[in-house]
Amino acid sequence: MTFVSKLRNRESLVGTWVALSDPAIAELSASLAFDAVVIDGEHSTNSLETITEMVRAVDAGSADREVGSIVRLSENDATEIKRVLDSGVSGVMAPMIDSADDARELVEATRYPPDGVRGVGYGRGTGYGEAFPEYLEHANDEIATIAQIETEAGFENVEEIAAVDGLDGLFVGPADLSAALDMFGETESDGFLAAVDRVLEAGHAVDKPVATLAFEEAEIERWVDCGFDFVLAGVDIDYIQAGATQAITMFEDALDGHGGV
Amino acid sequence: MTFVSKLRNRESLVGTWVALSDPAIAELSASLAFDAVVIDGEHSTNSLETITEMVRAVDAGSADREVGSIVRLSENDATEIKRVLDSGVSGVMAPMIDSADDARELVEATRYPPDGVRGVGYGRGTGYGEAFPEYLEHANDEIATIAQIETEAGFENVEEIAAVDGLDGLFVGPADLSAALDMFGETESDGFLAAVDRVLEAGHAVDKPVATLAFEEAEIERWVDCGFDFVLAGVDIDYIQAGATQAITMFEDALDGHGGV
Amino acid sequence: MTFVSKLRNRESLVGTWVALSDPAIAELSASLAFDAVVIDGEHSTNSLETITEMVRAVDAGSADREVGSIVRLSENDATEIKRVLDSGVSGVMAPMIDSADDARELVEATRYPPDGVRGVGYGRGTGYGEAFPEYLEHANDEIATIAQIETEAGFENVEEIAAVDGLDGLFVGPADLSAALDMFGETESDGFLAAVDRVLEAGHAVDKPVATLAFEEAEIERWVDCGFDFVLAGVDIDYIQAGATQAITMFEDALDGHGGV
Amino acid sequence: MTFVSKLRNRESLVGTWVALSDPAIAELSASLAFDAVVIDGEHSTNSLETITEMVRAVDAGSADREVGSIVRLSENDATEIKRVLDSGVSGVMAPMIDSADDARELVEATRYPPDGVRGVGYGRGTGYGEAFPEYLEHANDEIATIAQIETEAGFENVEEIAAVDGLDGLFVGPADLSAALDMFGETESDGFLAAVDRVLEAGHAVDKPVATLAFEEAEIERWVDCGFDFVLAGVDIDYIQAGATQAITMFEDALDGHGGV
Amino acid sequence: MTFVSKLRNRESLVGTWVALSDPAIAELSASLAFDAVVIDGEHSTNSLETITEMVRAVDAGSADREVGSIVRLSENDATEIKRVLDSGVSGVMAPMIDSADDARELVEATRYPPDGVRGVGYGRGTGYGEAFPEYLEHANDEIATIAQIETEAGFENVEEIAAVDGLDGLFVGPADLSAALDMFGETESDGFLAAVDRVLEAGHAVDKPVATLAFEEAEIERWVDCGFDFVLAGVDIDYIQAGATQAITMFEDALDGHGGV
Amino acid sequence: MTFVSKLRNRESLVGTWVALSDPAIAELSASLAFDAVVIDGEHSTNSLETITEMVRAVDAGSADREVGSIVRLSENDATEIKRVLDSGVSGVMAPMIDSADDARELVEATRYPPDGVRGVGYGRGTGYGEAFPEYLEHANDEIATIAQIETEAGFENVEEIAAVDGLDGLFVGPADLSAALDMFGETESDGFLAAVDRVLEAGHAVDKPVATLAFEEAEIERWVDCGFDFVLAGVDIDYIQAGATQAITMFEDALDGHGGV
Ligand SMILES: [Mg+2]
Ligand SMILES: [Mg+2]
Ligand SMILES: [Mg+2]
Ligand SMILES: [Mg+2]
Ligand SMILES: [Mg+2]
Ligand SMILES: [Mg+2]
Repeated sequence: MTFVSKLRNRESLVGTWVALSDPAIAELSASLAFDAVVIDGEHSTNSLETITEMVRAVDAGSADREVGSIVRLSENDATEIKRVLDSGVSGVMAPMIDSADDARELVEATRYPPDGVRGVGYGRGTGYGEAFPEYLEHANDEIATIAQIETEAGFENVEEIAAVDGLDGLFVGPADLSAALDMFGETESDGFLAAVDRVLEAGHAVDKPVATLAFEEAEIERWVDCGFDFVLAGVDIDYIQAGATQAITMFEDALDGHGGV
Repeated sequence: MTFVSKLRNRESLVGTWVALSDPAIAELSASLAFDAVVIDGEHSTNSLETITEMVRAVDAGSADREVGSIVRLSENDATEIKRVLDSGVSGVMAPMIDSADDARELVEATRYPPDGVRGVGYGRGTGYGEAFPEYLEHANDEIATIAQIETEAGFENVEEIAAVDGLDGLFVGPADLSAALDMFGETESDGFLAAVDRVLEAGHAVDKPVATLAFEEAEIERWVDCGFDFVLAGVDIDYIQAGATQAITMFEDALDGHGGV
Repeated sequence: MTFVSKLRNRESLVGTWVALSDPAIAELSASLAFDAVVIDGEHSTNSLETITEMVRAVDAGSADREVGSIVRLSENDATEIKRVLDSGVSGVMAPMIDSADDARELVEATRYPPDGVRGVGYGRGTGYGEAFPEYLEHANDEIATIAQIETEAGFENVEEIAAVDGLDGLFVGPADLSAALDMFGETESDGFLAAVDRVLEAGHAVDKPVATLAFEEAEIERWVDCGFDFVLAGVDIDYIQAGATQAITMFEDALDGHGGV
Repeated sequence: MTFVSKLRNRESLVGTWVALSDPAIAELSASLAFDAVVIDGEHSTNSLETITEMVRAVDAGSADREVGSIVRLSENDATEIKRVLDSGVSGVMAPMIDSADDARELVEATRYPPDGVRGVGYGRGTGYGEAFPEYLEHANDEIATIAQIETEAGFENVEEIAAVDGLDGLFVGPADLSAALDMFGETESDGFLAAVDRVLEAGHAVDKPVATLAFEEAEIERWVDCGFDFVLAGVDIDYIQAGATQAITMFEDALDGHGGV
Repeated sequence: MTFVSKLRNRESLVGTWVALSDPAIAELSASLAFDAVVIDGEHSTNSLETITEMVRAVDAGSADREVGSIVRLSENDATEIKRVLDSGVSGVMAPMIDSADDARELVEATRYPPDGVRGVGYGRGTGYGEAFPEYLEHANDEIATIAQIETEAGFENVEEIAAVDGLDGLFVGPADLSAALDMFGETESDGFLAAVDRVLEAGHAVDKPVATLAFEEAEIERWVDCGFDFVLAGVDIDYIQAGATQAITMFEDALDGHGGV
Repeated sequence: MTFVSKLRNRESLVGTWVALSDPAIAELSASLAFDAVVIDGEHSTNSLETITEMVRAVDAGSADREVGSIVRLSENDATEIKRVLDSGVSGVMAPMIDSADDARELVEATRYPPDGVRGVGYGRGTGYGEAFPEYLEHANDEIATIAQIETEAGFENVEEIAAVDGLDGLFVGPADLSAALDMFGETESDGFLAAVDRVLEAGHAVDKPVATLAFEEAEIERWVDCGFDFVLAGVDIDYIQAGATQAITMFEDALDGHGGV
């Protein structure tokens, strides 16, 4: 089953987040047991050229082609979306969706007329034109769209956003949403958890999955327990920082054990 | 004190290994408490253009400029060495040093005449020419040279290699050396540990540091206990793989705890 | 005579379309007998850095500098246009022009004040500043602007669009226009041909050229017969696909002839 | 003292302008006695990937980290600004600010909620997340924002623009402002000098610095005498052109002196 | 069955040659019915970074992973070979093999000790270390090695070269071999065909396949009839040139038919 | 007349040296009144991909195509030379030529058989194959080869090197030659000038031009007076440093004049 189908079925899904630019990371990530790999196009340096390499790397790394590739957009913009979709990505996630109109624009940007405004082009997604007719027949149904709820407006309008036809899911950005609700970083507070619940209910009321990002074991557990359908369970640069910091500690412990410095 | 001085003083040093191509990794690594960052130019895709970005990133990440940058060369070749040195790197590590002659060529490739054969050029190392006279005065003394002992010949000649004037240290590549000695992967065997001891003794007999690469806690401990002076305590792609794999496990555990799938 | 002059004179012109990113393709294309090379900035991965390389490659490939370079923009946006024009391109083609206002914005984005809003900068187009005064004197008159008619709105407003002062021509995107008019791919149907005629008449009524894209012999003939002034007669990735597919056939035929597999 | 503090203190500052793409230029520039390096993101080919390399190069080249890095944006756009800020830049300069609203959008784009709309992300500026809490505490106060006054509207509204809370300074683009006021290139005319005075007064009335760009000795003197606080005293591509042209002259003079060709 | 197995079984195989640098070409080529894609590392601009992207693109384009990827090396050099193999390529083709010793060095460079001198590293080929043990067990047996016979010496020693243990096949470069035998371009002459026969016999005598490159129908037929096992039936840049030239002709014919210019 | 012809005629020639990587510099340089542009492939970070862009940029910048493009190689290596020549460069300059044998290898690497060992390939130099027959007919006669005399051995053998058939000229690297002769930087000393005279006489005795690099007016004069035929009169990074340093001085002088700091 494809990632998009699983997402729409609200299966429990786990993914990883790639913010660095080396496609090897995307490929390695796709070869592990993740359901999807998010390629960051907002808080990263990645150009469309790099993003396309990374989407290809996800496909190359996923032997059965069932690992989803999601590009987190730099903004909810139809031009950026048409170009990102040409890369053959499974879905897009748009930051700072404030309203049902924003969500509708997101959905329409991913669809060919008459459902939307996506332009037709030769791209990786169509097999460079080779798979054109098949691609065009299915593309409007097969691209996942996820709205990031991370502004005050988006939070206030979350039920209407969730209900937008064609929108596939919501994403809570804990850092931005907590900042927007004036409780930055207090992601374990009752206030923030209540906010999270509202987003979860907004999604689940219309049977749509809600996703989020977590960094540590306790956070992963908390979000799973809260009822998130899809958890991005870490970020590449953070894996490196954690692993490297631990390596230093292990070396220092070894030195100490050895009667070290 | 500079990394090169610390290395020559045989202080206990810890570094990390960067095999990916995003300079952000080199910069982040240099901002942590490592003594040095190794930038891989052999088992990586990195071109000289990328390597130069990474050496710059190490300097940018090291507020006090005391984190060393070492480029692991693709081969012991004077042309590659002169170009890598132009990047302003603290030192170079050459693979597959088989003999004292190889080691002498390594040393000479890093030095201007009459001590060696390095050509004079405008490069990042000289402040783009601005710091030319100062650089030229000191460069022959300040670039670290490390010989990888990882072939049968290199192992047999390790004492002579270690004794080469101007060579600063040895590096044991556990994978390659164990393969070369026909005990691939048996890095905990008595045979391999005896081989390691011979390399350590060869280095220490002439008061030169010996380095190696380790991936896990037990390995780091083992090599520290063996007496290695300088341990590369992990590789970027491996930190990602370990962190990502652990993230999946944490998610699955959370699901199970939650009454899971 | 320059490409822009020929275009404005409504000479019969033939071009080729470059959607891939290797500048060698742009250079080779410019060395053939084309009047112009279109560099795709919409349905391609190309960044401005790559586009600038390709515009330079067109100039390098065109011994007499008479082959036009046209960048197909990702959108009708003044910021993108000013940056693309800095590359020294002969003209720009803007997708999804919906109205005379859109067309006026396109024209104004290509012109320095008081005719437009283009900002003055050092770029390749000005000889890196060296040819500044000459360039500024002529630039407002010498950059071609082409509006893509490919949406329902654009089609409905095509006569007004065509009449916009300073707009040099129209382009029919067969795939998008047929999709927009709800007859996707039926580019040989009476309905679509009637639509094409309306665009052609809209352009020709104000003595402006109309361009389109064609992939095969029959299509090229059809569009020439319809009265298109400027035909983009193929796309690089399609030449490769056609040539490669034919190569396989030739090999299989040879095998069969040889008493094959 | 940081560049941003010096700018706000209205110290006399000198900078240089980097329009080319090789980070070596940014690094070399930062190693000289400039107060700041402007990295051009408008009239250059630079992508965000290149800009990030250049911001890193400024930091690497500035031993004491006191040389400011300013990115001149391609437009006053919140999405571009959030991504550029992730690079760790000291400040941004936005082209074609027409009104106080434009200036407010510029300021808000650089600030986290509740002061602005900047999204929270892992980037170079936060030490790749490592310095997150410290960075977030200070970032809203420490990023310089400069508005380019170079359109007729911007000039008419300059006093209101200057007064916008959080805006740090103004920049006069002589080429664009003279074009906008219909006296292109007449930057020594009384009319243009009067316009310059109005901008200087607008800034100084609210105790904010005013910057500009100058190419030659007489121009630098003129702008210093006019009272500009911050002068960008040249552009990389212009240094090359001037130096190269002079080299040819010196060669020809030498030939003539020698009884040459 | 893998490409390497088919090659060793001397099946009739057809491939295509990629000399341009855009990975999209490699990916498209792999999605067509070719048995293998050759990525040129000699007469191309491609760096190892680009080659690695292209090998990944071949894998991404080949749904069943049975399309082989072959890198044509810039030279028969163990350092280049170890780095290219890290990309996960199916095989390598070495130019200008002059002797059995050259061929033995080629084979040894592709094998880990004790069979050869390849160094062990984390690379794409090993699944970034994840598939390490499996990879190492099989790699020595699964990488194809092809020797280009294209010099006078190589031609004189072709029987000995063909017989080298572990060498998988020969390749005749018609342009270079005809130049080396002083009959440049006379590839249909009796003299050249006799030379080709000698190479074919040398390969077939030891049951090893012989490959070549052909550009046109007649040439493909001729080489199939001669008994070549593996034909590279075209080059990307040539497909573009042929397609583009034909497009111009079709346009001109259409114009003529239309009563054109 | 082409640059190569002028060089062989021993006309007085002036060039510039490009060590940075932005092709805009090569293009601007070629648009000025230089006879040739040297693109550095040794003391620069440039890969073959970048060098090819720069050779193309020289052609694009030279309206009449008479500005020569010379690549300074990283070493005297036939593999590097064949790849560089594919870029369509006018000539190559090889560092550290020690003997007549070295010089002969340089010449042979630039020539197709039977005169040399260059392999035939599709590259930019042949018009991507289009101009193949013409190119092959002339290429052996039209590529300039210049030997750098900058080692002790090269200096001792300079007469024999100069006499090598097909070698077009010599180049004195003042920095390296003075270092090799143990008088580093003493380029105005009698000893060094005597050495320079020997190289000049060696070249002129066989009617071959001798080139060098100079940075300042006095140096240019000195070398012209010494009789150098071809002077590289500056380096891009040095033009920037000189221009930037002067800009700071001009700003400070203006401040002082103004009653400054
Ligand atoms: Mg379209
Ligand atoms: Mg030299
Ligand atoms: Mg401006
Ligand atoms: Mg966010
Ligand atoms: Mg090794
Ligand atoms: Mg060949």
